[in-house]
Amino acid sequence: MTFSTVKRAISRIEPISNPNLEQWVRRRLDMLTKPPGSLGRLEDLALRVALIRGEMAPSISRKRMTVFCADHGVTAEGISPYPSEVTRQMAANFVKGGAAISVLCRQLGIECVVVDAGMLGGSSEGVVDGKIAEGTRNFAVEPAMTRAQAEASIALGFSRVVPLDLLGAGEMGIGNTTAAAALLAAFTGADPADCAGRGTGIDDAGLARKADVIRRALSLHGPDPKDGIGTLAAVGGFEIGAIAGYVLGAAASRTPVVLDGFIACSAALVVRAICPAALDYVIFAHRSAERGHDRMLAELGAAPLIDLGMRLGEGTGAALGMQLIDSAIHLYLEMATFADAGVSGASS
Amino acid sequence: MTFSTVKRAISRIEPISNPNLEQWVRRRLDMLTKPPGSLGRLEDLALRVALIRGEMAPSISRKRMTVFCADHGVTAEGISPYPSEVTRQMAANFVKGGAAISVLCRQLGIECVVVDAGMLGGSSEGVVDGKIAEGTRNFAVEPAMTRAQAEASIALGFSRVVPLDLLGAGEMGIGNTTAAAALLAAFTGADPADCAGRGTGIDDAGLARKADVIRRALSLHGPDPKDGIGTLAAVGGFEIGAIAGYVLGAAASRTPVVLDGFIACSAALVVRAICPAALDYVIFAHRSAERGHDRMLAELGAAPLIDLGMRLGEGTGAALGMQLIDSAIHLYLEMATFADAGVSGASS
Repeated sequence: MTFSTVKRAISRIEPISNPNLEQWVRRRLDMLTKPPGSLGRLEDLALRVALIRGEMAPSISRKRMTVFCADHGVTAEGISPYPSEVTRQMAANFVKGGAAISVLCRQLGIECVVVDAGMLGGSSEGVVDGKIAEGTRNFAVEPAMTRAQAEASIALGFSRVVPLDLLGAGEMGIGNTTAAAALLAAFTGADPADCAGRGTGIDDAGLARKADVIRRALSLHGPDPKDGIGTLAAVGGFEIGAIAGYVLGAAASRTPVVLDGFIACSAALVVRAICPAALDYVIFAHRSAERGHDRMLAELGAAPLIDLGMRLGEGTGAALGMQLIDSAIHLYLEMATFADAGVSGASS
Repeated sequence: MTFSTVKRAISRIEPISNPNLEQWVRRRLDMLTKPPGSLGRLEDLALRVALIRGEMAPSISRKRMTVFCADHGVTAEGISPYPSEVTRQMAANFVKGGAAISVLCRQLGIECVVVDAGMLGGSSEGVVDGKIAEGTRNFAVEPAMTRAQAEASIALGFSRVVPLDLLGAGEMGIGNTTAAAALLAAFTGADPADCAGRGTGIDDAGLARKADVIRRALSLHGPDPKDGIGTLAAVGGFEIGAIAGYVLGAAASRTPVVLDGFIACSAALVVRAICPAALDYVIFAHRSAERGHDRMLAELGAAPLIDLGMRLGEGTGAALGMQLIDSAIHLYLEMATFADAGVSGASS
């Protein structure tokens, strides 16, 4: 898929507003055997999924999590306690079923697809090959990728969307909290020290180094926050570009897409710069414990579903969020109405 | 089951402290292929379930939700927009599968058992008959129940515990947010106006009436907050006593029990007055939107798992919490270790 195909599809993405459908769903929710509004945000979720899919009864049977994996040249700056080879080892672990995301997907009936968006090394068994390059360049000294590579990463993610009932996106990439923090700083103007967190567990010296790397990179590249692709190219990552493309693809096919934590949400900042309407199709799963995620969520106007102090990535928060959305839809579709169940209503 | 049997069992309930097991579980969690602690509270949940059950590998296959139903004489004071007959109608809806709790239990693989702890009217098909009486008395003018009835409600709940892998407790009872708010005020000394909320949706005048009813009742009965059973008898409800007994039974059989929202948590206040160690076996599922629940959770030192603005009861919040606990256990038991998966560790 070429980026010009993606651009044409993006131009047709519209906000999800549909007052008639919204009124219909709200009425239906109020007919169910419960006090009005008493299922709280589960009711909002049912409405949101109905509006995204443009359906009165948006049942969810096929769910897929796509985990995009890539490596990062910026690891040369010593910003992660884990070596880059872990990206590839973990991708193999995803496929073999031993990783957290594998366990959750198996438990929750979510198909798990692992995509190589740019890992170091050759192809991996069971991993979809979408490699843009063997890792990004070290953005502390040069742009992470070319503009063509940034576009290719978006096209990759876009092409991975199949219009199932509910999609989720996660990632793996040693070094990618540094890229995500750099994108947050670049898109919002926030101080890198407020954007960089401990990632997989860097120490104080590493954390200071991380903020400094971001500060140097922004000064070196001076990315324009209105230019989503240019900013992605300067300090992003291939898996982040792919998630941005995946969100755009989901929006283009009117499919709800659930985003994981800090890194996945940094892709939403890229999306916002390219096509803000696409964010209507995103459900933000959880509040990560990674420093900077609060600021990122606030920037995106997102109120995530879950706040359990998780900071693993992979799509683990998104998988739990997808399960809550599934519950919301089950309730909406399967609960009896007051009339059906012969339950008396409230006095008014 | 008599209350003296319950008392003997309660006397053997011990806190869940077990330093050796705790150290073993923590080590295991740190061997799994993720940065240490990165699954946040899911790791705490796995540890908690292991400590409660006293097992290194506490797998969860059999889950049960018990929904205790009862009526409340205090409805005579006009504190609910719904008539008492709704309790019985909703119990039938639970059994027929059309209620929110039925839908969630079906989706999440939780067996749902409905118990009549004291509904108005005769026996109901599919509902376990544990009726203490046909509703409580109006506690605005006389004690809700006798001390013997309070003890019987606790014995009922205790007797409903079967040592499965994970239990949940919910309730249904028109008028029971008033009883729960009265228990909160009685046990903590808080102003009834800060304890009473809108329940199923009472208007401003009803809300003021509700607080006033509680104020009058506390002044009339002067319950002793150290006397859990006496306070339950004065202003409680049969389903609340039954949930307190269910928690005590779960603790006595070392089974984790997940509590729903405002009403179920008021039973935890009763438990605390009778046997504080039993609260070690309770996992608080969610923060209800019902006013007073924040105060109640703070009083119990509880940090619930979910905060989705729900205020339905029935066990709906508990069911979602049980699913998260199940995820935590799946992760703990099924994730590969760094050694098994051949994944490099962090540099130190």
